[in-house]
Amino acid sequence: MINFEALFRISYGLYIVCSGDKKHGNGFISNTVFQVTAEPPKFALCCSKKNFTTELIKETGAFSVSVLHIAASPDLFGRFGYRSGKDFNKLEGINVQYGESTGVPIVLNDSIAFLECRVIQTVDVGTHLLFIGELLHSGILDDAKDPITYLYYRQIRKGAAPKNAPTYIDKSKLEPIIRATEFKKYECTACGYIYDEAIEGKKFTDLPPDWVCPSCGTAKEDFIEVNN
Amino acid sequence: MINFEALFRISYGLYIVCSGDKKHGNGFISNTVFQVTAEPPKFALCCSKKNFTTELIKETGAFSVSVLHIAASPDLFGRFGYRSGKDFNKLEGINVQYGESTGVPIVLNDSIAFLECRVIQTVDVGTHLLFIGELLHSGILDDAKDPITYLYYRQIRKGAAPKNAPTYIDKSKLEPIIRATEFKKYECTACGYIYDEAIEGKKFTDLPPDWVCPSCGTAKEDFIEVNN
Repeated sequence: MINFEALFRISYGLYIVCSGDKKHGNGFISNTVFQVTAEPPKFALCCSKKNFTTELIKETGAFSVSVLHIAASPDLFGRFGYRSGKDFNKLEGINVQYGESTGVPIVLNDSIAFLECRVIQTVDVGTHLLFIGELLHSGILDDAKDPITYLYYRQIRKGAAPKNAPTYIDKSKLEPIIRATEFKKYECTACGYIYDEAIEGKKFTDLPPDWVCPSCGTAKEDFIEVNN
Repeated sequence: MINFEALFRISYGLYIVCSGDKKHGNGFISNTVFQVTAEPPKFALCCSKKNFTTELIKETGAFSVSVLHIAASPDLFGRFGYRSGKDFNKLEGINVQYGESTGVPIVLNDSIAFLECRVIQTVDVGTHLLFIGELLHSGILDDAKDPITYLYYRQIRKGAAPKNAPTYIDKSKLEPIIRATEFKKYECTACGYIYDEAIEGKKFTDLPPDWVCPSCGTAKEDFIEVNN
Protein backbone atom coordinates (compact mmCIF):
# COMPACT_ATOMS: atom_id res chain seq x y z
CA MET A 1 0.00 0.00 0.00
CA ILE A 2 1.20 3.50 -0.81
CA ASN A 3 0.58 6.24 1.74
CA PHE A 4 0.99 9.45 -0.27
CA GLU A 5 1.55 11.53 2.86
CA ALA A 6 4.90 9.74 3.26
CA LEU A 7 6.09 11.32 -0.01
CA PHE A 8 5.89 14.76 1.58
CA ARG A 9 8.58 13.78 4.11
CA ILE A 10 11.28 13.82 1.40
CA SER A 11 13.13 17.17 1.53
CA TYR A 12 13.73 19.49 -1.41
CA GLY A 13 14.80 23.06 -2.05
CA LEU A 14 13.14 25.38 -4.56
CA TYR A 15 14.96 26.77 -7.56
CA ILE A 16 14.42 28.72 -10.76
CA VAL A 17 15.90 26.63 -13.56
CA CYS A 18 16.56 28.50 -16.81
CA SER A 19 17.75 27.71 -20.29
CA GLY A 20 17.89 29.28 -23.74
CA ASP A 21 19.82 32.43 -24.59
CA LYS A 22 19.52 36.23 -24.69
CA LYS A 23 16.89 36.14 -27.42
CA HIS A 24 14.79 33.17 -26.27
CA GLY A 25 15.15 32.38 -22.61
CA ASN A 26 12.75 30.72 -20.21
CA GLY A 27 12.67 29.26 -16.73
CA PHE A 28 10.51 27.31 -14.30
CA ILE A 29 10.31 26.52 -10.59
CA SER A 30 11.95 23.18 -9.82
CA ASN A 31 12.36 21.28 -6.58
CA THR A 32 14.42 18.42 -7.97
CA VAL A 33 17.99 19.62 -8.33
CA PHE A 34 20.66 17.60 -6.53
CA GLN A 35 24.33 16.76 -6.70
CA VAL A 36 25.16 13.26 -7.99
CA THR A 37 28.97 13.23 -7.98
CA ALA A 38 31.68 15.27 -6.27
CA GLU A 39 34.57 14.50 -8.65
CA PRO A 40 33.78 16.21 -10.97
CA PRO A 41 30.79 18.09 -9.50
CA LYS A 42 27.69 16.98 -11.42
CA PHE A 43 24.04 17.79 -10.81
CA ALA A 44 20.83 16.02 -11.80
CA LEU A 45 17.73 17.99 -12.70
CA CYS A 46 14.28 16.47 -13.26
CA CYS A 47 11.98 18.16 -15.82
CA SER A 48 8.54 17.39 -17.18
CA LYS A 49 8.56 16.54 -20.88
CA LYS A 50 5.71 19.06 -21.19
CA ASN A 51 7.75 22.02 -19.88
CA PHE A 52 8.82 24.64 -22.41
CA THR A 53 12.18 24.99 -20.61
CA THR A 54 12.81 21.27 -21.19
CA GLU A 55 12.80 21.95 -24.95
CA LEU A 56 15.30 24.76 -24.48
CA ILE A 57 17.61 22.55 -22.38
CA LYS A 58 17.51 19.91 -25.12
CA GLU A 59 18.34 22.56 -27.76
CA THR A 60 21.13 24.36 -25.89
CA GLY A 61 22.51 21.46 -23.82
CA ALA A 62 22.82 23.72 -20.82
CA PHE A 63 20.87 25.05 -17.84
CA SER A 64 21.22 27.34 -14.86
CA VAL A 65 19.89 26.93 -11.32
CA SER A 66 19.10 29.91 -9.06
CA VAL A 67 18.60 28.99 -5.38
CA LEU A 68 15.62 30.92 -3.97
CA HIS A 69 15.77 32.26 -0.43
CA ILE A 70 13.21 31.80 2.31
CA ALA A 71 11.48 35.16 1.73
CA ALA A 72 11.37 34.93 -2.08
CA SER A 73 8.50 36.93 -3.59
CA PRO A 74 5.19 35.13 -4.32
CA ASP A 75 5.29 36.90 -7.71
CA LEU A 76 8.31 34.78 -8.68
CA PHE A 77 6.42 31.56 -7.84
CA GLY A 78 3.43 32.78 -9.83
CA ARG A 79 5.49 33.83 -12.83
CA PHE A 80 7.86 30.85 -12.99
CA GLY A 81 5.80 28.12 -11.31
CA TYR A 82 2.30 28.26 -12.71
CA ARG A 83 2.48 29.87 -16.14
CA SER A 84 3.90 28.57 -19.39
CA GLY A 85 6.67 30.42 -21.22
CA LYS A 86 5.24 29.29 -24.57
CA ASP A 87 2.99 32.37 -24.78
CA PHE A 88 4.61 34.75 -22.29
CA ASN A 89 8.14 36.12 -21.79
CA LYS A 90 8.81 35.12 -18.19
CA LEU A 91 12.20 36.88 -18.13
CA GLU A 92 10.85 40.33 -19.06
CA GLY A 93 11.55 42.73 -16.20
CA ILE A 94 13.58 40.11 -14.33
CA ASN A 95 17.17 40.75 -13.23
CA VAL A 96 19.16 38.29 -15.35
CA GLN A 97 22.83 37.60 -16.02
CA TYR A 98 24.02 35.25 -18.75
CA GLY A 99 26.23 32.23 -18.08
CA GLU A 100 29.90 32.90 -18.82
CA SER A 101 30.38 29.44 -20.36
CA THR A 102 27.04 28.64 -22.00
CA GLY A 103 25.14 31.93 -22.27
CA VAL A 104 22.05 30.58 -20.48
CA PRO A 105 20.03 33.13 -18.50
CA ILE A 106 20.50 33.07 -14.70
CA VAL A 107 17.78 34.71 -12.57
CA LEU A 108 19.23 36.89 -9.81
CA ASN A 109 15.99 38.04 -8.12
CA ASP A 110 15.62 36.68 -4.56
CA SER A 111 18.40 34.16 -5.23
CA ILE A 112 21.28 33.36 -2.89
CA ALA A 113 23.42 31.20 -5.17
CA PHE A 114 23.55 29.94 -8.74
CA LEU A 115 24.91 27.03 -10.76
CA GLU A 116 25.64 26.89 -14.48
CA CYS A 117 25.78 23.38 -15.96
CA ARG A 118 26.40 21.70 -19.31
CA VAL A 119 24.26 18.61 -19.99
CA ILE A 120 26.36 15.46 -20.40
CA GLN A 121 23.63 12.78 -20.08
CA THR A 122 19.86 12.71 -20.54
CA VAL A 123 17.80 9.94 -18.96
CA ASP A 124 14.17 9.22 -19.87
CA VAL A 125 12.28 8.27 -16.68
CA GLY A 126 8.74 8.29 -18.12
CA THR A 127 6.79 11.54 -17.88
CA HIS A 128 10.02 13.37 -17.02
CA LEU A 129 13.63 13.66 -18.19
CA LEU A 130 16.62 13.61 -15.89
CA PHE A 131 19.35 15.90 -17.15
CA ILE A 132 22.82 15.20 -15.72
CA GLY A 133 24.88 18.39 -15.92
CA GLU A 134 28.53 19.01 -15.24
CA LEU A 135 29.06 22.13 -13.14
CA LEU A 136 30.95 24.82 -15.06
CA HIS A 137 30.40 27.87 -12.91
CA SER A 138 28.82 28.67 -9.55
CA GLY A 139 28.59 31.60 -7.19
CA ILE A 140 27.11 33.06 -4.05
CA LEU A 141 24.71 35.98 -4.54
CA ASP A 142 23.59 36.56 -0.93
CA ASP A 143 25.39 35.01 2.02
CA ALA A 144 22.95 36.12 4.71
CA LYS A 145 19.71 34.30 3.83
CA ASP A 146 18.77 30.64 4.10
CA PRO A 147 17.49 28.68 1.09
CA ILE A 148 13.74 28.07 0.97
CA THR A 149 12.70 24.45 1.33
CA TYR A 150 9.69 22.77 -0.22
CA LEU A 151 8.45 21.88 3.31
CA TYR A 152 8.54 25.55 4.32
CA TYR A 153 6.79 26.55 1.09
CA ARG A 154 4.04 23.99 1.72
CA GLN A 155 3.60 24.36 5.49
CA ILE A 156 4.27 28.04 6.12
CA ARG A 157 3.51 29.63 2.77
CA LYS A 158 0.85 27.06 1.85
CA GLY A 159 2.08 26.60 -1.69
CA ALA A 160 1.20 23.60 -3.84
CA ALA A 161 3.14 21.77 -6.56
CA PRO A 162 2.03 22.51 -10.14
CA LYS A 163 0.69 19.59 -12.18
CA ASN A 164 3.95 19.03 -14.10
CA ALA A 165 6.07 18.70 -10.94
CA PRO A 166 7.59 15.28 -10.15
CA THR A 167 6.08 15.67 -6.68
CA TYR A 168 2.55 16.65 -7.73
CA ILE A 169 -0.03 14.70 -5.75
CA ASP A 170 -3.69 14.48 -6.70
CA LYS A 171 -5.51 15.62 -3.56
CA SER A 172 -8.04 12.79 -3.88
CA LYS A 173 -5.21 10.36 -3.04
CA LEU A 174 -4.58 11.88 0.37
CA GLU A 175 -6.44 10.64 3.43
CA PRO A 176 -9.73 12.57 3.75
CA ILE A 177 -9.87 15.02 6.65
CA ILE A 178 -13.38 15.25 8.08
CA ARG A 179 -14.43 18.70 9.11
CA ALA A 180 -17.95 19.64 10.22
CA THR A 181 -18.16 23.18 8.94
CA GLU A 182 -20.30 25.72 7.21
CA PHE A 183 -17.25 27.51 5.89
CA LYS A 184 -16.43 27.55 2.20
CA LYS A 185 -13.22 26.93 0.29
CA TYR A 186 -11.85 28.75 -2.74
CA GLU A 187 -9.15 27.46 -5.06
CA CYS A 188 -6.57 29.45 -7.01
CA THR A 189 -7.03 28.45 -10.65
CA ALA A 190 -3.33 29.08 -11.33
CA CYS A 191 -1.58 27.14 -8.59
CA GLY A 192 -4.25 25.14 -6.73
CA TYR A 193 -3.75 27.01 -3.44
CA ILE A 194 -6.86 26.60 -1.24
CA TYR A 195 -8.22 29.53 0.75
CA ASP A 196 -10.10 27.76 3.55
CA GLU A 197 -12.41 30.08 5.52
CA ALA A 198 -12.37 27.61 8.43
CA ILE A 199 -8.61 28.03 8.79
CA GLU A 200 -8.32 31.70 7.86
CA GLY A 201 -11.27 32.79 10.03
CA LYS A 202 -12.44 35.26 7.39
CA LYS A 203 -14.94 34.97 4.56
CA PHE A 204 -13.33 34.99 1.12
CA THR A 205 -15.85 37.58 -0.10
CA ASP A 206 -14.76 39.90 2.72
CA LEU A 207 -11.14 39.98 1.48
CA PRO A 208 -10.16 43.26 -0.26
CA PRO A 209 -10.36 43.28 -4.08
CA ASP A 210 -6.58 43.69 -4.42
CA TRP A 211 -5.92 40.59 -2.32
CA VAL A 212 -3.76 38.06 -4.22
CA CYS A 213 -2.94 34.39 -3.85
CA PRO A 214 -0.27 34.13 -1.09
CA SER A 215 1.30 31.23 -2.95
CA CYS A 216 1.61 32.54 -6.50
CA GLY A 217 0.31 36.13 -6.61
CA THR A 218 -2.75 35.42 -8.80
CA ALA A 219 -5.66 37.91 -8.47
CA LYS A 220 -8.61 37.24 -6.14
CA GLU A 221 -11.01 37.15 -9.12
CA ASP A 222 -9.19 34.07 -10.47
CA PHE A 223 -10.27 31.95 -7.49
CA ILE A 224 -13.23 29.59 -7.75
CA GLU A 225 -15.39 28.14 -5.00
CA VAL A 226 -14.79 24.43 -4.46
CA ASN A 227 -16.76 21.75 -2.65
CA ASN A 228 -15.70 20.80 0.86
CA MET B 1 34.95 29.59 -11.82
CA ILE B 2 33.34 27.24 -9.34
CA ASN B 3 32.56 28.57 -5.87
CA PHE B 4 32.13 25.41 -3.78
CA GLU B 5 30.20 27.27 -1.08
CA ALA B 6 27.34 27.62 -3.59
CA LEU B 7 26.92 23.83 -3.62
CA PHE B 8 25.90 23.94 0.05
CA ARG B 9 22.83 26.03 -0.85
CA ILE B 10 21.16 23.02 -2.51
CA SER B 11 18.70 21.42 -0.05
CA TYR B 12 18.57 17.75 0.90
CA GLY B 13 17.04 15.53 3.55
CA LEU B 14 18.87 12.72 5.32
CA TYR B 15 17.81 9.11 5.03
CA ILE B 16 18.90 5.60 5.92
CA VAL B 17 18.83 3.61 2.68
CA CYS B 18 18.81 -0.18 3.10
CA SER B 19 18.95 -3.23 0.89
CA GLY B 20 19.55 -6.97 1.16
CA ASP B 21 17.38 -9.37 3.10
CA LYS B 22 16.88 -10.88 6.58
CA LYS B 23 20.19 -12.76 6.41
CA HIS B 24 22.40 -10.12 4.78
CA GLY B 25 21.10 -6.60 5.13
CA ASN B 26 22.93 -3.30 5.16
CA GLY B 27 22.25 0.41 5.01
CA PHE B 28 23.92 3.80 4.73
CA ILE B 29 23.12 7.46 5.27
CA SER B 30 22.05 9.14 2.03
CA ASN B 31 21.07 12.70 1.24
CA THR B 32 20.19 12.16 -2.41
CA VAL B 33 16.72 10.64 -2.55
CA PHE B 34 14.11 12.49 -4.62
CA GLN B 35 10.94 11.90 -6.55
CA VAL B 36 11.30 11.95 -10.35
CA THR B 37 7.76 11.18 -11.54
CA ALA B 38 4.30 11.32 -10.00
CA GLU B 39 2.51 8.90 -12.36
CA PRO B 40 3.60 6.31 -11.33
CA PRO B 41 5.53 7.50 -8.25
CA LYS B 42 9.24 6.88 -8.89
CA PHE B 43 12.25 7.87 -6.86
CA ALA B 44 15.90 8.36 -7.75
CA LEU B 45 18.66 7.42 -5.34
CA CYS B 46 22.35 8.24 -5.82
CA CYS B 47 24.92 5.76 -4.42
CA SER B 48 28.71 5.57 -4.50
CA LYS B 49 30.00 2.59 -6.45
CA LYS B 50 32.21 1.90 -3.42
CA ASN B 51 29.29 1.47 -0.98
CA PHE B 52 28.53 -2.05 0.20
CA THR B 53 24.79 -1.28 0.07
CA THR B 54 25.17 -0.45 -3.64
CA GLU B 55 26.20 -4.07 -4.24
CA LEU B 56 23.13 -5.29 -2.33
CA ILE B 57 20.81 -3.02 -4.35
CA LYS B 58 22.29 -4.42 -7.58
CA GLU B 59 21.79 -7.99 -6.30
CA THR B 60 18.25 -7.61 -4.96
CA GLY B 61 16.93 -4.90 -7.32
CA ALA B 62 15.24 -3.16 -4.41
CA PHE B 63 15.87 -0.62 -1.66
CA SER B 64 14.14 1.07 1.25
CA VAL B 65 14.37 4.67 2.44
CA SER B 66 13.78 5.68 6.07
CA VAL B 67 13.30 9.42 6.60
CA LEU B 68 15.23 10.54 9.70
CA HIS B 69 13.71 13.17 12.00
CA ILE B 70 15.33 16.32 13.26
CA ALA B 71 16.41 14.82 16.61
CA ALA B 72 17.74 11.53 15.21
CA SER B 73 20.46 9.99 17.40
CA PRO B 74 24.12 10.74 16.58
CA ASP B 75 24.71 6.99 17.04
CA LEU B 76 22.65 6.33 13.89
CA PHE B 77 24.81 8.75 11.88
CA GLY B 78 27.96 7.10 13.26
CA ARG B 79 26.74 3.58 12.58
CA PHE B 80 25.22 4.11 9.13
CA GLY B 81 27.19 7.12 7.89
CA TYR B 82 30.83 6.53 8.64
CA ARG B 83 31.41 2.79 8.93
CA SER B 84 31.36 0.11 6.26
CA GLY B 85 28.96 -2.83 6.46
CA LYS B 86 31.54 -5.07 4.81
CA ASP B 87 33.04 -6.03 8.18
CA PHE B 88 30.28 -5.07 10.62
CA ASN B 89 26.57 -5.88 10.91
CA LYS B 90 25.05 -2.41 10.98
CA LEU B 91 21.51 -3.75 11.53
CA GLU B 92 22.32 -5.67 14.73
CA GLY B 93 20.29 -4.20 17.60
CA ILE B 94 18.38 -1.91 15.20
CA ASN B 95 14.58 -1.92 15.02
CA VAL B 96 13.90 -3.27 11.52
CA GLN B 97 10.85 -4.35 9.56
CA TYR B 98 11.08 -6.13 6.20
CA GLY B 99 9.46 -4.80 3.03
CA GLU B 100 6.15 -6.49 2.25
CA SER B 101 6.91 -6.61 -1.49
CA THR B 102 10.68 -7.06 -1.70
CA GLY B 103 11.83 -8.20 1.75
CA VAL B 104 14.43 -5.41 2.07
CA PRO B 105 15.15 -4.23 5.63
CA ILE B 106 13.56 -0.91 6.65
CA VAL B 107 15.07 0.91 9.64
CA LEU B 108 12.42 2.22 12.03
CA ASN B 109 14.66 3.95 14.63
CA ASP B 110 14.22 7.75 14.66
CA SER B 111 12.36 7.56 11.33
CA ILE B 112 9.11 9.38 10.48
CA ALA B 113 8.29 7.74 7.15
CA PHE B 114 9.55 5.01 4.83
CA LEU B 115 9.52 4.08 1.15
CA GLU B 116 10.01 0.65 -0.40
CA CYS B 117 11.08 0.69 -4.07
CA ARG B 118 11.89 -1.76 -6.83
CA VAL B 119 14.72 -0.70 -9.16
CA ILE B 120 13.57 -0.27 -12.76
CA GLN B 121 16.55 1.65 -14.20
CA THR B 122 20.22 2.05 -13.25
CA VAL B 123 22.22 4.99 -14.59
CA ASP B 124 26.01 5.23 -14.40
CA VAL B 125 26.97 8.84 -13.64
CA GLY B 126 30.70 8.28 -12.98
CA THR B 127 31.77 7.62 -9.40
CA HIS B 128 28.12 7.00 -8.49
CA LEU B 129 25.07 5.08 -9.72
CA LEU B 130 21.58 6.54 -9.95
CA PHE B 131 18.97 3.92 -9.15
CA ILE B 132 15.46 4.75 -10.37
CA GLY B 133 12.94 2.89 -8.23
CA GLU B 134 9.20 2.49 -8.59
CA LEU B 135 7.43 3.03 -5.28
CA LEU B 136 5.70 -0.16 -4.09
CA HIS B 137 4.90 0.67 -0.50
CA SER B 138 5.17 3.70 1.79
CA GLY B 139 4.04 4.69 5.26
CA ILE B 140 4.14 7.24 8.03
CA LEU B 141 5.91 6.15 11.23
CA ASP B 142 5.70 9.38 13.26
CA ASP B 143 3.45 12.25 12.27
CA ALA B 144 4.65 14.73 14.91
CA LYS B 145 8.29 15.33 13.99
CA ASP B 146 9.86 17.22 11.09
CA PRO B 147 12.39 15.57 8.77
CA ILE B 148 16.04 16.49 9.35
CA THR B 149 17.67 18.46 6.55
CA TYR B 150 21.28 18.36 5.47
CA LEU B 151 21.52 22.12 6.21
CA TYR B 152 20.35 21.55 9.78
CA TYR B 153 22.75 18.63 10.17
CA ARG B 154 25.65 20.77 8.94
CA GLN B 155 24.82 24.08 10.62
CA ILE B 156 23.23 23.06 13.91
CA ARG B 157 24.64 19.59 14.49
CA LYS B 158 27.93 20.35 12.72
CA GLY B 159 28.00 17.08 10.78
CA ALA B 160 30.11 16.53 7.69
CA ALA B 161 29.53 14.45 4.57
CA PRO B 162 31.51 11.18 4.42
CA LYS B 163 34.00 10.78 1.56
CA ASN B 164 31.66 8.61 -0.58
CA ALA B 165 28.79 11.14 -0.51
CA PRO B 166 27.86 12.87 -3.78
CA THR B 167 28.10 16.14 -1.83
CA TYR B 168 31.50 15.54 -0.22
CA ILE B 169 33.69 18.63 -0.51
CA ASP B 170 37.40 18.64 0.14
CA LYS B 171 37.87 21.38 2.74
CA SER B 172 40.91 22.72 0.89
CA LYS B 173 38.53 23.85 -1.90
CA LEU B 174 36.59 26.18 0.37
CA GLU B 175 37.64 29.80 0.78
CA PRO B 176 40.18 30.03 3.60
CA ILE B 177 38.94 31.73 6.75
CA ILE B 178 41.74 33.61 8.50
CA ARG B 179 41.66 33.44 12.27
CA ALA B 180 44.39 34.78 14.54
CA THR B 181 44.21 32.28 17.34
CA GLU B 182 46.19 30.19 19.75
CA PHE B 183 43.37 27.66 19.98
CA LYS B 184 43.74 24.15 18.63
CA LYS B 185 41.49 21.98 16.48
CA TYR B 186 40.78 18.27 16.77
CA GLU B 187 39.29 16.10 14.04
CA CYS B 188 37.07 13.05 14.45
CA THR B 189 38.82 10.24 12.58
CA ALA B 190 35.48 8.60 11.77
CA CYS B 191 33.45 11.46 10.31
CA GLY B 192 35.76 14.44 9.94
CA TYR B 193 33.90 16.60 12.46
CA ILE B 194 36.18 19.38 13.73
CA TYR B 195 36.18 20.37 17.40
CA ASP B 196 37.43 23.95 17.24
CA GLU B 197 38.45 25.32 20.64
CA ALA B 198 38.06 28.89 19.32
CA ILE B 199 34.38 28.26 18.62
CA GLU B 200 33.59 25.97 21.54
CA GLY B 201 35.41 28.14 24.11
CA LYS B 202 36.78 25.08 25.88
CA LYS B 203 40.03 23.17 25.55
CA PHE B 204 39.59 19.71 24.02
CA THR B 205 41.74 18.18 26.76
CA ASP B 206 39.36 19.62 29.37
CA LEU B 207 36.38 17.68 27.94
CA PRO B 208 35.29 14.68 30.08
CA PRO B 209 36.68 11.26 29.00
CA ASP B 210 33.18 9.99 28.08
CA TRP B 211 32.60 12.93 25.69
CA VAL B 212 31.75 11.72 22.17
CA CYS B 213 31.65 13.27 18.72
CA PRO B 214 28.40 15.29 18.48
CA SER B 215 28.13 14.38 14.82
CA CYS B 216 28.67 10.61 14.81
CA GLY B 217 29.12 9.41 18.42
CA THR B 218 32.79 8.38 18.08
CA ALA B 219 34.84 8.34 21.32
CA LYS B 220 37.00 11.32 22.36
CA GLU B 221 40.16 9.18 22.14
CA ASP B 222 39.58 8.73 18.40
CA PHE B 223 40.10 12.45 17.71
CA ILE B 224 43.45 13.73 16.42
CA GLU B 225 44.90 17.22 16.63
CA VAL B 226 44.97 18.99 13.27
CA ASN B 227 46.85 22.04 12.04
CA ASN B 228 44.99 25.33 11.89
